[in-house]
Amino acid sequence: MTCILGIDPGSRVTGFGVIEWVRQKAYFRECGCIRLTAEALPERLQEIFLGITEVITRQAPDVLAIEQVFMSHNANSALKLGQARGVAIVAGVLRGLSIAEYDPTQIKQAITGQGHADKTQVQHMIKVLLNLSDTPQADAADALAVALCHAHTTRYTQRLQGIRFNLK
Amino acid sequence: MTCILGIDPGSRVTGFGVIEWVRQKAYFRECGCIRLTAEALPERLQEIFLGITEVITRQAPDVLAIEQVFMSHNANSALKLGQARGVAIVAGVLRGLSIAEYDPTQIKQAITGQGHADKTQVQHMIKVLLNLSDTPQADAADALAVALCHAHTTRYTQRLQGIRFNLK
Repeated sequence: MTCILGIDPGSRVTGFGVIEWVRQKAYFRECGCIRLTAEALPERLQEIFLGITEVITRQAPDVLAIEQVFMSHNANSALKLGQARGVAIVAGVLRGLSIAEYDPTQIKQAITGQGHADKTQVQHMIKVLLNLSDTPQADAADALAVALCHAHTTRYTQRLQGIRFNLK
Repeated sequence: MTCILGIDPGSRVTGFGVIEWVRQKAYFRECGCIRLTAEALPERLQEIFLGITEVITRQAPDVLAIEQVFMSHNANSALKLGQARGVAIVAGVLRGLSIAEYDPTQIKQAITGQGHADKTQVQHMIKVLLNLSDTPQADAADALAVALCHAHTTRYTQRLQGIRFNLK
């Protein structure tokens, strides 16, 4: 069993989602949002750090999966996102988690079968794939999506390794 | 006495500088660079976090002073800088330091008397103001500059408060 924590960092809301990956099947554990309430940046970053650390303590995941970001415009948003993202990653590393990064196209491809799916499609597919009764909030769904992407990618890598092994 | 830790975060090198501010005078304690050696981003961010935490443990500063960043172009650099900056700030907040941010013009103005000074001028003035035998490395000098800017700004604020008090 592998427990995967997906994180969708943001300067206002940071989504998180935890799944279990057992015998090639994904099981939902929990998801939610860390809504930043403090006004000043240092306290906001602390809210992200402590929020993620709390989830790690509660769920003891093995891996933190996070979206890789490529930004070509709006340097100011990139800086803000970078701050949140850096804090999220360091919260995982300090607790000994391995960190996996996936680019947005790869995540959408893994969840919806196409690299250019919109947010609603991702939310819908997350609900279906994890057998949820309600549609998760958008940031939480994105966090679950990157966690699921990690599970699928690992499975694929393991399969490839299996094939290589069989060929020996 | 106030002990001020100045930080100049970067995705390759993070400069730090520690000064003591006693009776309106600045005294140099130490400065240096955290050079990131790991290849992967999570380990690099951990190097920043642990490096700053080590300085905080050694020097027990009261304040972490850091440059405010306004970037209008190159979103990719902004993201990288943001990650380093977020980790630096959270390292301070988690140890109970107050965080002070100053914009680049304000820092240069405080150190050189003009808002558009170049790096060499800042390095030179840091050497003079802190009575150093050698010119500090550029990132360490920038870190000392923001620490000194905090000291000067606090002095100015205290003076203003004093004036207000006298007028009562």
